[in-house]
Order: sequence, then structure tokens, then C-alpha cells
Amino acid sequence: MPVPSLIALLRARGSVLSSWIAMPEPLVAESAARAGFDCVTLDMQHGLHDPVSIMRGIGAVALAGVPAIVRVPVGDFAMASRALDMGASAIIAPMINSAADAEALARATKYPPIGERSWGPVRAMQIAGATGGNAYLQGANAETLTFAMIETRAAVAALDEILAVPGIDAIFIGPSDLSIALSRGGHVDPMDAENQAVASDLLARAHAAGKYVGMFALTGAQAKLYLGLGYDFVALGSDDMYLQAGAASMLAEARAK
Amino acid sequence: MPVPSLIALLRARGSVLSSWIAMPEPLVAESAARAGFDCVTLDMQHGLHDPVSIMRGIGAVALAGVPAIVRVPVGDFAMASRALDMGASAIIAPMINSAADAEALARATKYPPIGERSWGPVRAMQIAGATGGNAYLQGANAETLTFAMIETRAAVAALDEILAVPGIDAIFIGPSDLSIALSRGGHVDPMDAENQAVASDLLARAHAAGKYVGMFALTGAQAKLYLGLGYDFVALGSDDMYLQAGAASMLAEARAK
Amino acid sequence: MPVPSLIALLRARGSVLSSWIAMPEPLVAESAARAGFDCVTLDMQHGLHDPVSIMRGIGAVALAGVPAIVRVPVGDFAMASRALDMGASAIIAPMINSAADAEALARATKYPPIGERSWGPVRAMQIAGATGGNAYLQGANAETLTFAMIETRAAVAALDEILAVPGIDAIFIGPSDLSIALSRGGHVDPMDAENQAVASDLLARAHAAGKYVGMFALTGAQAKLYLGLGYDFVALGSDDMYLQAGAASMLAEARAK
Amino acid sequence: MPVPSLIALLRARGSVLSSWIAMPEPLVAESAARAGFDCVTLDMQHGLHDPVSIMRGIGAVALAGVPAIVRVPVGDFAMASRALDMGASAIIAPMINSAADAEALARATKYPPIGERSWGPVRAMQIAGATGGNAYLQGANAETLTFAMIETRAAVAALDEILAVPGIDAIFIGPSDLSIALSRGGHVDPMDAENQAVASDLLARAHAAGKYVGMFALTGAQAKLYLGLGYDFVALGSDDMYLQAGAASMLAEARAK
Amino acid sequence: MPVPSLIALLRARGSVLSSWIAMPEPLVAESAARAGFDCVTLDMQHGLHDPVSIMRGIGAVALAGVPAIVRVPVGDFAMASRALDMGASAIIAPMINSAADAEALARATKYPPIGERSWGPVRAMQIAGATGGNAYLQGANAETLTFAMIETRAAVAALDEILAVPGIDAIFIGPSDLSIALSRGGHVDPMDAENQAVASDLLARAHAAGKYVGMFALTGAQAKLYLGLGYDFVALGSDDMYLQAGAASMLAEARAK
Amino acid sequence: MPVPSLIALLRARGSVLSSWIAMPEPLVAESAARAGFDCVTLDMQHGLHDPVSIMRGIGAVALAGVPAIVRVPVGDFAMASRALDMGASAIIAPMINSAADAEALARATKYPPIGERSWGPVRAMQIAGATGGNAYLQGANAETLTFAMIETRAAVAALDEILAVPGIDAIFIGPSDLSIALSRGGHVDPMDAENQAVASDLLARAHAAGKYVGMFALTGAQAKLYLGLGYDFVALGSDDMYLQAGAASMLAEARAK
Ligand SMILES: [Mg+2]
Ligand SMILES: [Mg+2]
Ligand SMILES: [Mg+2]
Ligand SMILES: [Mg+2]
Ligand SMILES: [Mg+2]
Ligand SMILES: [Mg+2]
Repeated sequence: MPVPSLIALLRARGSVLSSWIAMPEPLVAESAARAGFDCVTLDMQHGLHDPVSIMRGIGAVALAGVPAIVRVPVGDFAMASRALDMGASAIIAPMINSAADAEALARATKYPPIGERSWGPVRAMQIAGATGGNAYLQGANAETLTFAMIETRAAVAALDEILAVPGIDAIFIGPSDLSIALSRGGHVDPMDAENQAVASDLLARAHAAGKYVGMFALTGAQAKLYLGLGYDFVALGSDDMYLQAGAASMLAEARAK
Repeated sequence: MPVPSLIALLRARGSVLSSWIAMPEPLVAESAARAGFDCVTLDMQHGLHDPVSIMRGIGAVALAGVPAIVRVPVGDFAMASRALDMGASAIIAPMINSAADAEALARATKYPPIGERSWGPVRAMQIAGATGGNAYLQGANAETLTFAMIETRAAVAALDEILAVPGIDAIFIGPSDLSIALSRGGHVDPMDAENQAVASDLLARAHAAGKYVGMFALTGAQAKLYLGLGYDFVALGSDDMYLQAGAASMLAEARAK
Repeated sequence: MPVPSLIALLRARGSVLSSWIAMPEPLVAESAARAGFDCVTLDMQHGLHDPVSIMRGIGAVALAGVPAIVRVPVGDFAMASRALDMGASAIIAPMINSAADAEALARATKYPPIGERSWGPVRAMQIAGATGGNAYLQGANAETLTFAMIETRAAVAALDEILAVPGIDAIFIGPSDLSIALSRGGHVDPMDAENQAVASDLLARAHAAGKYVGMFALTGAQAKLYLGLGYDFVALGSDDMYLQAGAASMLAEARAK
Repeated sequence: MPVPSLIALLRARGSVLSSWIAMPEPLVAESAARAGFDCVTLDMQHGLHDPVSIMRGIGAVALAGVPAIVRVPVGDFAMASRALDMGASAIIAPMINSAADAEALARATKYPPIGERSWGPVRAMQIAGATGGNAYLQGANAETLTFAMIETRAAVAALDEILAVPGIDAIFIGPSDLSIALSRGGHVDPMDAENQAVASDLLARAHAAGKYVGMFALTGAQAKLYLGLGYDFVALGSDDMYLQAGAASMLAEARAK
Repeated sequence: MPVPSLIALLRARGSVLSSWIAMPEPLVAESAARAGFDCVTLDMQHGLHDPVSIMRGIGAVALAGVPAIVRVPVGDFAMASRALDMGASAIIAPMINSAADAEALARATKYPPIGERSWGPVRAMQIAGATGGNAYLQGANAETLTFAMIETRAAVAALDEILAVPGIDAIFIGPSDLSIALSRGGHVDPMDAENQAVASDLLARAHAAGKYVGMFALTGAQAKLYLGLGYDFVALGSDDMYLQAGAASMLAEARAK
Repeated sequence: MPVPSLIALLRARGSVLSSWIAMPEPLVAESAARAGFDCVTLDMQHGLHDPVSIMRGIGAVALAGVPAIVRVPVGDFAMASRALDMGASAIIAPMINSAADAEALARATKYPPIGERSWGPVRAMQIAGATGGNAYLQGANAETLTFAMIETRAAVAALDEILAVPGIDAIFIGPSDLSIALSRGGHVDPMDAENQAVASDLLARAHAAGKYVGMFALTGAQAKLYLGLGYDFVALGSDDMYLQAGAASMLAEARAK
């Protein structure tokens, strides 16, 4: 049974909530998938993954029936191609600060004529249940999504040029980095008012350009807020947070007077 | 900084709450340790571990400053010795149904003259901060704890003989298996009244014999109950449960109307 | 989508062909599953597995939609329980030479009242798509199969007692070991006439007792022969053989004059 | 016993057939080596490797007595250096589209004065049986081969400049990507007539420049064709293909009527 | 190039010095092999191995051209068979305290008619360069060695019965455990005079019975002593000791005034 | 108990001796830490690591109470950020040949306003015992050190510009590569007189600019020399050297006449 793609879920559900996984253990990703998230993001940038843990995580998440997204390290566009070959349904690339960055990203994630993604999707075709090379080739550019992260002053300034790059399907706002950038290193505070105002402007401009917009939420309340504001893809918490929150809640009950 | 032993915690705190880890990823065990549990049990019987994941998990839990306990597979007393060599602070051995089982367990977990544990604690001495072989040898039998699991009709009948075996420091009640045994395969229900009555009797008899008693709780409320009843060592939930509980709680908040 | 159980396939198809996997790499098992085998056996006895590679292999095979069987090391009945907990659809236990061996095997693989399998099937319930503990408990004894390997003179002599042990659902003939035993170490030759005659007698007696019978085939021709003789479960070749056969065939074509 | 280098095999045999390995399991690479290939290529670009699986695979292939080649991810020239340090006998770098790309590749794979490969070949010297640092340093540039992949329109146009870059010992044609590029994303078809014509022209020009030429063949028949056309290094199939071909052939025999 | 067997080295060199490896990293075992030891023992009893790290370690040690020996956990005779299948040249089994223990050991390590080792040496045949099943079967009982560890009072008392068990090729003295046993838990001191006297008596009796004798040495001086006393197989130190000794020596030189 | 940072050790001790680890096994790194080094460097450039082995190694080294440093592959500044997120106390980046290289390095290793390091130090905060995001953010730029490797003619020429780049805290001299560069590929000889003279000049200029200077020593005697010359951070030998030196010393003693 092929796993639905992220874009299919976005079309069917309007918006999605994604889990966020830092630990290089497929069972953790699979457990999150079984907990009710629409999809699971495996984070290579700040998470603790190898390429192989990404590959195994994508399989584990597929076994639970949901699509996997991969955030690659800064500038590692070769890994973006590899993650798609491993069956990722979307790529999130951090620190896309210019049209040139966006072009390099699209080149790695889209087949010709849009980009220059190289051919070799053996694993992706297994995960997707694809039946033939040419069919996969014709569908891949539309069926897999490329998110450019907007999280610096330069990126905010270059947003329109970035949105205009063919193959950039979506942006993903990095609210912590954005708050550090806006405060010039003064603080990390995603919910800072200026930060939220800039984010809302990014959301509006990206939607106006016909692109999806993703956002990272540290709490359920933040996620609810973002869904209400119209964000399409909301990542919520992380594996360590789920584990510690669940454990703390059970411990509190056990130790209650 | 050496990690406190389980027995030191029991003496200092009266009772302890242990995490329960099935996934073979040290970061999961370490995260649970950081969530506030007094100690962490790595489960090889129903969990998904290899010997090496146990060894790495013990190190990870030590980095978080708490002792690790290992539950070994049924009858795998060689693994009990190995887990102690890897630095485990206590062993939980399932399905100890007779004095002969208990003697085999003690033989593997205690040095002469009590048992026949074989010498080779290089890693354990690093984890414990031990300074010399003879000092470790002299202290190990008292500093590491051996739990015999009582979870069948035969074990209940043989309890007094099991408690009388030198080197058995504690029992651990397996409430799910006990309920299956008492119902002759009819159901699994740890909170069944007959089951709880038998467990309470085991608790009383073991305490009367001067032994510690452990119990497994599926929820915080069960753990609170067991602590109130006088159980010394209460294991609470499992890694998959923490993860799914934490994730579900955040998802519910995000999706609340 | 839950994976079909081995017994469901046996009922639906009459007989099955199983792959045989020695390498501790889930992708190898999954590739074999995708090649058209009805099911995949992961071999811990002569294969090169750890418990964790078994667990990951079962998941990989499930992703390809077929059930996994695990052959455990000689006498490692604790591992038989663990493999069932990891989601194995059947267990093959080598060197079951007496009713006592068979009873120990059944004790580990069947819940009360048949045996004493211990409760903890968290992963198995995920793989099977089980919805509740009591439902799993009630179904597991019938839904998972226990194969006793018959491969020594003692086992042949004790066959009827072994078949009479409750919880032994099937036998699996080890034709290489049987030929070594029958020749008292003289040769290894599964197709030796005496060996085949003894095997046919075992097949007839086990079928008469209402048990399934498995057999190992080194070649497709042998497998075809066994299917024709009425064996229910035929394991065919191994991962190293598939790899080398496929490679050799392509190399031969490339180097043809 | 030191393993022969790829260049030694090319000199001795005129041309070589290489296996192609995507799975991160050293036993798979070793099995392919034992199947009769002259050498084994470990593919990091579209394969499923980590740096550590490459290192272990090179050792496994050496144990079988043949040299290993590593294809690195797009633009990951640091990994090219690392693979040589791990004992690779040659590097294949994808998407070398310009003289600048080729220079960056040569800088990473050749010691001064040709390039700027950094010193640290501890493992490579073990694999090669090298006896001293200066001897290794003096021989390495000639004894290890650098393949630039030619697989885009830009690369075809820049071929002569690429061939002129010191340190580029060979080209490797990526026939699938070339066919996608030539059809501007229209299809993937390595055997397309235009594609083969362009490839033959590349072969002739590279040979005229005194460089080796590699090619990827999906079938034994394609490999035979390429050897006949004068390609020096022909990669044939992949691990998943060997496995599935071998398994399918045995299954077909077993199920034959 | 097949690796020499341990017995071939014993015949050729009279006695051998073995490395001792606890860490589950093949490169550590291979490094020790390259340091000049005649052979390498991988220790599963007090070491930190999984079955898979044993398998990979045997391959790594073979790449360095020397045979590997495996010490299995207490009573894990199934692992003894598996280690031979993985290519071990000898097995060391701890805590063989009676003829019954020795018989169980021989049953697992010798093919019929001596024992009941099960057939499946695919990997061992690759490591040994074996050419056919029957040839391997006929040679294996003589070409691989089985060491029974003598390290308890019971074992000392039963030595003659143990030596009389067919298939027991050698004994290995565990000097630390023996000293603990002789002192009834009072101390661990391999060089204690009584301990050495008992060991010398074991050596003489085993040699008189035509068996090889192994011994563990903590220092080079101890090893020299044992070689002088006529021990055939002397294990020396361990990986952690080599590492710390080499590091400490370099640090001392660096910090010298 | 938080681990001291490298900069804290430098301040407290004036200079430090670092171990150097190539093997991807945390126990090797931990063993070196326990041998008395002030800190441990994990080498990804010429060593045999994956990102995950770096993450686990940092934890293992922390368990032994000392800080970890990571040398990243050439140009892999994304990995520099990731290593800091994993808890590295300092980064060593090879082949920093220009101010532009140094700026890219600082951008990845320093938060705004110095650089553009991205936010996500969950693991680093655990290792450092950090208590809050803003506190970590404010301290990180000063508490973690960035070493630029100077090891080419271009780097020597550009030293002053490199030292002037904000965020470059230190240089690390690569004496082998420098000797190859100075001899234009003629030899590798760190102790060559010209090489040492250039190194001393680099040391003086970097110290004059208020930067720390690191150096790699192959022997204890070289390390002693460098400490005497005023180098702040001296890396000494490597894991394979410790292992082989310790083993060789014990073997020599054992085989002494
Ligand atoms: Mg960010
Ligand atoms: Mg139980
Ligand atoms: Mg058999
Ligand atoms: Mg290509
Ligand atoms: Mg011993
Ligand atoms: Mg260098």
C-alpha cells in the first residue's frame, strides 16, 4: 500500500501537523507517526542523524502509513537529492538567503527541465509504489515538495526573488533563527511580536505567490495559533520534547500528594 | 562523578520510580533519565535491545547521573552477568519460578562465596568510579541488586523458597503475566482484584523476609497507588508510552477547537 | 495495512515459498520480499543476525507486505519469545530432539494455558495492527506458528512424542543436518536417497498428526520437488545465493563471446 | 596480501567489470566481490551509504581480494578525499559540468603539486599494504584514479576543457542522466539512439585525450555491448538487481508447471 | 589468501600470543592484529560485543591475516556454534565445571560423530577459503579448536573427566576467577602463589592428556613467564589496556620535565 | 556535572594535550579520555566517523569528564554547526586558505551578530548543563572555540587576513600538509626545518593577534617540544597509534629473551 505524499495530504486536509525527529532511531520516528501526526519530519540540521538513519526512518514512517519530510544541513543540496532518492516526500532546506541559494536548492530537488536532480530513485520508487521509471520521472517534480527556509534578514529581503525561482514550492519559516536575526543576536524568542509580524508578512506574500508556508511551533498552543493564521504545514515540538512531556506528566501523577 | 547506585537511592529516598526503555537508542534512555525518573530500566525481555545497546544505554543514563537497571531475557543468566559487567546497578530476571531458578540467577549475579559470577568488570568499574579490583570485588555483591520476577502460579507457590536463596535481594512482580497466569490465559489485566490481592500478599511476604519489592505500573495513577502500598521500586510506563502520550497531548492542544 | 500472517497465507495458498536471510541488513530482507516470495525467514542460527537486526528486518519485510519468520539459535527459547514480541509470524527452532525440547519450545511461544510465553507484545501488535491486549492474547496462540526442527536421529525417533506436544504447530526438516546425522558425519547431502526417504516419512507422519511441514531447498528444482511432494512451507536458497546467482548470470551475459 | 589497484587491473586486463552497491552492508559488497566482478563500486550518490559503511565496505571488498571504487555525492569533494583515505582505489564524482568542477575534484583527490589532497591516509596504507608515508605520497596520484562524470549538456559541451584538467584520469558517463538531459526531462532511456551517439563521441574524445572511460550498464547485454565498443570500466547492475534477479530465477524454477 | 588456522599456528610456532578485544569495533581488533599478535580473541563474556560485532571482527582480523578466536558467554553453546559459522578458528567457553558442561560444549562445536554441531558454515567457508561442503565437514572438527575454561573449584576437581570428553581440544585457565574461587571470594589475584601452583598442576595434567593449554596474562612479564612455563596459548592484556598504556606512555613523554 | 569547556581548561592550565580519535567507536574516545588527556579531538577529516559516531563520541568523552573537539571535513561548515549542536567544545576546520574561507567558517560557528550559526543546541545544552536558551545564546560565541587550520602556502600568505576575521579564535597548524605544500609534494615531514620555521612564525603572529595556536604532534617528544615552544593546544598521536604502541610494548616484553 503506497504511502500518501505530503502534497496529497495538503490537498486533502488543507493543512497538516508534522512531527519533528532528531534521534537517529527509526522506532522513534515510527512511534511519532503512530501518535497521530499527519507526517514526520526527520531533522538532519540540528538533529542527530546520519544519511542511513534518514533512510531507515523514512521506511519506518512509511510502515506507519505517513509521508516523511527531511530537513537537510545548511547548504547540503546533495543530501536533498539523496533524501528524495530515499523516499522523502518533501525537503526542507535551511538558510535559503538569496535567489542563488534557492536556485541551487531547486537544481538538486527537481529533474530537468526545472533542475538537475540526478537519476537514481530506486528506493523512492519502492516507498512510493512507483511502477516505472518514466512515470516516476514525469511525476516527481510535482509530487515532491521543496521548502526554502526563510530565517535571516537577507532572506526576508530576498523573499520575492526566492519565491520566483522555479521549483521552490514552499517556504518554511525558522522562527528561532529569525528572532535571533531580527534582534541581532540579542535573544531567541519565536513569539516576539516583531518576529510574528515579520512571519505573518512572509506568510501573506508566499500565499500570494501561490506557495505553501510552513512554520515551527514549540507548543500545541503555538501550533493551534499558526493553523488559525493559515499556515499550511506546522511542525510541532520534537521527539525529546514528546518523551520528556509524556514522562513528566506520568511522573507528576505518580508523585502527586 | 560516579553515579549513585540503586541501593543507595533506595536507602536515601525510601522508594524510587524507574523509567522503562524498550528502544535500542541510548538517547531515548538518556532523555528519560533527564525527565526526572530516579533510575532507568533497560528491558531486554520484551524490549528491542542488543547487548551493545544495553552497554551504550547504561553509559548514556550514567551521563545523566542516574543508575541503570537491566531486565534480561528469560533464563539468560549469562546476560545478567554481562549487564553487571557493563555497569548495571541491578538485574531484573523474569520468570523465576523455583528455588532452582533463583539459585541459577544468584550464581550469575553474585561473586563467591554467594555465587559464581565471573570476574571481568572493567566497564562497571569505570561507570562506578571504582578504584581497584579487590575493592570492587568486596563491594559488588552488596552494591548491586538482584530482582527475581514473580509472575506465575509456580513462582507464587515457591515464593518462600525463592526468598530464602542467598543473593536474591528483591522480587519484582510482573502484574500482566501474573494476571494471565491467574486467569489461566483468560485475560491480561494487572488491576484485576485477585491479581492485586496476590501481589499484596507477595509484597508483605517479601518485606517480611527483608527483601525489596518492585512492581510495574502502566499509569501514573497506578504508580501512585503502588508507592502508597509500600512498593520500593516502581517502574512506570515505557518509552513508547512517554513518546505517544507527550505527542498526543501536544496534538490535542493543537487541534482543539 | 496489517501484514497477513503466515497461517493466513498457508490457508489461502495451500503452500508457501519462503526466502531465507542471513545478512543483518533490513534492505536485504525487504528486497527478497519484493522479489516475490510469499514470506521471509530471518535466520539467527546460521545467519549473521543480532536481535536488533531481526527486529528491523521484521519491520522491513512488513513494509513489503509479507510476514516474517524467525529461526532462533539452538535452545534459545527466550529469543523465540522475543522474536514473537518483535512481530514474527512464526518461529523455527532448530534441534528439537525430544518431547522435553518441544515442551520448552512451546512454553516460550504459547501463552497460557498452553505455555508460559510472557506478556509484552507492544511491537508485535503494531506490526499485526492489533487493537487491544486481550484480543491479541486470545488470538496469538493460533495466529503464530511454532515449527520444531527435526534433524537428528534422536528427533526422528521421538517424532511422535514431539508431534503430541501441545503448541507444536509444525515441523521443519533440516535436510543437511539430517544427512550428516544419518551418515554419522560422513557427508552433507540433502538429496541423498536415504535422507529423502526419512524426510518423506516425517512428512507423512506429521501430516497425519495434522501439523504443517517445512523443508529447506537449495535450488528451485528442489523446491519444486518438495512442493510436489506436499510440503507446506518450502524455504528456498539464501540471500548470498540470490546475490551471487543474479550477479553471476549478469556477468556471464556480459562476458559471453 | 595487498589488494590490486584498479589501475593495475585495467593495465593487466584491458577492461574491467564493476559491481555497484547501494546497500550499507559490507557483506553485500563482499558477496558481489566473490561473485566474480573485477572490482566493486560503492555508490554514495544514489545509494544508501554513510561514510562508515563506505569504510567498512572497502575493507570487506579487500578481504575478497578486489579493489573498491567510491562514487561520492554531487559536489562532495571532501568525501572524495575521505574515501581515498579509507582505501578507495578510485573516485567517481557525479555532475562534473565544467573545468571549474573538474579542478575542484582534482584538488581534492590529488596531492601537490597537482592538487591539494590533505595528508592522513592511515587506513588507505593498511588496505594498500603501503610501507611508508613518503612512498605512499609519491605513488598515490598515479595509483588512484579520478573519474569525472559526464552527464549533462554543459558537461558534454565542456568535455575538452574537463579532459585538460590535470588530475582527471578518466570520465564516467551517466547514461540515465544524459538521456534525461538530452530529452530535456522527457524520458530516461540510456539506450536511446541519440544518447548512445553522444556517449560514443565522448568515448572517442576521452580516449583521444588518453583518458579511461567508464559507463553504467543495466543488463549483461548492455555491458557486453559497451565492452565491445571499447569502454574501459563498465559498471553492471546493482545489489538490489542481483538479489532480485537471483531470487526471481529460483522462484520461477520452483513455481514452474 | 586464506587465513591460517590457530591450530596451524600452534603447530608451526609452538606457542602463540593472542590479543584480547572487548570493544565492539572491528577496527580495534584489526589494529591489534596489525600490532604483531599471532591471533586475536574476541571476548563476548566480559567484553562488550554483539553477535554482529563478532562476525565483523572476525572479518577484520582476517583482513590483517591472522585467525580469530571467540570467547562466548557462560553456557551459551549456541553462540559457540554461531561463532564457528562466522569463521572463528577456536572457541573459548567459560566456566566448564563438569564433564556434562564439557559434553554440551563439544556437542555444539563438533560435527557428528563427535558432537551435534549444526550445518551452515557459509561464512566460515569464505573466511577459510574452503572449496566444498564435504571437505569442510571432514576437516572442521580437527581444524577448529575447543577450549574449556577451568576456573572454579569444581572444574579443578573434574579436570580429568573434562579432559576425557571427546571434542575438548584444550583448556584455558581463568586465573582471576580461579583466584577468587580458591580464596572463596577473598581476593582477585592471578599471581597468588596457590593460584599459580594450581594452574601449573592443571597445565601438567592437560599436557599429559595431550591437550593444549591457554592462560590469560595481564602484563608482558606475566606472558613471558607463562610462555616459559610451557603454556601454548597466552592471551595478553586487552584493547582498553593497550590504548591506555600507549596513550599514557606518550603523555608521560610529552609531560616530562 | 557539566563538563569543563576547552576554553576553561586553556585558561586554567595554560596549555592542553588532546587525544586524537579516528575510530567511530565511543568507547575508544572514552578510553583515551580516561588515559589522562585534557581533552579529546574526534577527527572527521582523515578519521573514520559518521555524524552519529561524533555525537556518541562527544557523549562518551563527557562521561569521562573532559571536553570534545571535532575536526570537520574540508569545507563542511554545516558539519561544524552540527558538531557544536552535538556538544563539541571547539571546532577545527581544515584547509582555511583565505579570509573568505575563514568568514564562511565563522559564519557557521558563531551566532549573530558575529556569524549566522543556526539555532538548535538541544544536545549541546544537555552536555554543557545549560539552563536556558537565552543564556546559552549569549555565552556560546565565547565559550566554544573555532580553529582555522593553516596548512597551505595560500593560508600562510593570508594568515593576517584570516586572523582578522571576527569569530576565528585560534589557528591549528597542519604540519604534515604544510610540509607537503612547502616541498611542493616532495615529501611529508612535519619536523623538516623549514616547516618548523614557518610554523614558529605562524605561532608568533597568531599569538601577537591574541589567538590560540594548536599543533599536531606524532610523538610524545614532539608534543613536549611544542609545549615548550608555547603552543596552547597540542594534539598527540591517534587512537591507532596508542593501541599499537601499547600492544607492541606488551608484546616486546612478552617476547623478550
Ligand atoms: Mg533555523
Ligand atoms: Mg512478565
Ligand atoms: Mg540444521
Ligand atoms: Mg547520474
Ligand atoms: Mg573467568
Ligand atoms: Mg591537514
